[in-house]
Amino acid sequence: MPELRQNPITKEWVIIAPTRGQRPTEFKAEIHEDNSPIYDPNCPFCPGNESMAPEEILSFQSEQKNGWAVRVIPNKYPALTPQGNYTRKNISDFYRKMQDAVGSHEIVIESPQHNAKLGFMPDEQVKTILTAYKKRYLTNCNSGYKLVTIFRNYGEAAGTSLRHPHSQIIATPIVPNSKRYPVEEAMRYYDDNGACVFCDMINQELAVQDRIVILGKKFILFEPFASRIPYETCIMPISHAASFSFITSEEIEELAHILNQFLKLIYFKLNNPSYNYMIQTIPCKSERNLFYHWNLVLLPRLTKFAGFELGSGIHINNMYPEECAAILKDQK
Amino acid sequence: MPELRQNPITKEWVIIAPTRGQRPTEFKAEIHEDNSPIYDPNCPFCPGNESMAPEEILSFQSEQKNGWAVRVIPNKYPALTPQGNYTRKNISDFYRKMQDAVGSHEIVIESPQHNAKLGFMPDEQVKTILTAYKKRYLTNCNSGYKLVTIFRNYGEAAGTSLRHPHSQIIATPIVPNSKRYPVEEAMRYYDDNGACVFCDMINQELAVQDRIVILGKKFILFEPFASRIPYETCIMPISHAASFSFITSEEIEELAHILNQFLKLIYFKLNNPSYNYMIQTIPCKSERNLFYHWNLVLLPRLTKFAGFELGSGIHINNMYPEECAAILKDQK
Repeated sequence: MPELRQNPITKEWVIIAPTRGQRPTEFKAEIHEDNSPIYDPNCPFCPGNESMAPEEILSFQSEQKNGWAVRVIPNKYPALTPQGNYTRKNISDFYRKMQDAVGSHEIVIESPQHNAKLGFMPDEQVKTILTAYKKRYLTNCNSGYKLVTIFRNYGEAAGTSLRHPHSQIIATPIVPNSKRYPVEEAMRYYDDNGACVFCDMINQELAVQDRIVILGKKFILFEPFASRIPYETCIMPISHAASFSFITSEEIEELAHILNQFLKLIYFKLNNPSYNYMIQTIPCKSERNLFYHWNLVLLPRLTKFAGFELGSGIHINNMYPEECAAILKDQK
Repeated sequence: MPELRQNPITKEWVIIAPTRGQRPTEFKAEIHEDNSPIYDPNCPFCPGNESMAPEEILSFQSEQKNGWAVRVIPNKYPALTPQGNYTRKNISDFYRKMQDAVGSHEIVIESPQHNAKLGFMPDEQVKTILTAYKKRYLTNCNSGYKLVTIFRNYGEAAGTSLRHPHSQIIATPIVPNSKRYPVEEAMRYYDDNGACVFCDMINQELAVQDRIVILGKKFILFEPFASRIPYETCIMPISHAASFSFITSEEIEELAHILNQFLKLIYFKLNNPSYNYMIQTIPCKSERNLFYHWNLVLLPRLTKFAGFELGSGIHINNMYPEECAAILKDQK
């Protein structure tokens, strides 16, 4: 029997309907093969091809070998560009626009190796990637942008266009409503309860245990109660912090390890799935608040967002998060 | 140069970045072939196979031939089920759920012909489909459900699992926040301006003309100013009506024709794209309000929703809606 669950942070509902997973389909599952070479002469992210890409913003040198370990470059085909005017303009009393989409769109090249995979890199390498995230996050916030979104698209179903391992950072001159809404809900929860809804969620998860997959000293990795899709995963710092910018070097160290461990786990358990992960954090200049709590959300793209999700905003999930957690922990 | 545009209804922003369309990709475009037969002995929606599916709720007989033209059946693998208890239950003072996902999940089988295509059916057939939508919409609203979502998934990229032409209707016992938000924004616009934001949008579009693709007597079909993806399309009744339930038979007649015409157009111009369409309407029991305005949104699935869209809620569109409209009208 399906049930409905509410996400206490966003107040959105999801339908958990396990029987939907049994329905017939005429379409074959995607096959994930990857025989990319270690170096691709046509790849703008491979070492030696640096001149094919725009000039680098930041780089970390390798400790073992000559050359860079991680580098950040501007996106050659940016969604936003640093030059321009911040003015919002009304067109015809009705429509509003910014003639210039001022902002920053950066690529974090995560390894010199074309076929490297996050999940199988040394923890040290992932630490460097997360350190690059933090540095660029701070610089972008300090440049006057309003929101910095750090994300990673892995695999074709997750919308990636290049195989070389990379993440992206987009800094926008606006904060969208869809970002404000969950922040407002969290603020209302704080005003009602005198506590951060995310901190309360962590306490609940620690009490119940059955949705936790990995518990570190500084981070908790769990399958949320109101997961929208199978294996939706959340990694949250256990100590309250509204902004990713507060991540400490000890936290970076543990997060690198947990992220690596989890990505390796889903590679084997879920057959190398496409996924997106996003760091959800408070907009710039509101970092010190008590009601929001940054986190990393990972969405394996095993299903497609279809008309019902797009039309109603309600998601139908055909797996219980408790079951996903048990499978990932080899308890099922 | 990219620009940012705000949707006056939802207040969400989109980035229009035409140069993003030129970036290289290592992945091939999906190929759309369809050589399905007119009848498939394994298809539960084909005539003669009715016993493979649950008992029908509604049917319309064909005027030309023996048998049904359009029928509505319960989904055999429903996301929600009509039996059960509406009670919301608090679990552990923190999480809230409805133990029973009470609701209705129906399939509108749009033709007896397995390989028929919406866009190439007679207008009369599409009228019957829209009439079925209205009848089931009314019955579901009157049964006490809170929101009725009518949608169609066409093609694999749009998440369909069966080829036989069909739409779906899901009636839920809850109204999600993501539905309430745009309604609230529309209410605020009304309180500020004394006018329906959708009606004002229609007037703007009529004044500017360059985003309109089809203009009927009762409906306007246009590419919205702040389109989230290339060829996002909106069909709106020109007369104010908050709820789809008010659609008249004259409106059904014109909508059937326009929908057919538009789907044929994108079949040829966009190479038989996968798409979702959704009827966006006010929740049940608030039908008579002056600030919301029902509409049909069609999203061709030529691009994928990736980490940035999922993380920030901001969409990056690599085509101007004015350009999409010109291409569809053969002006470019």
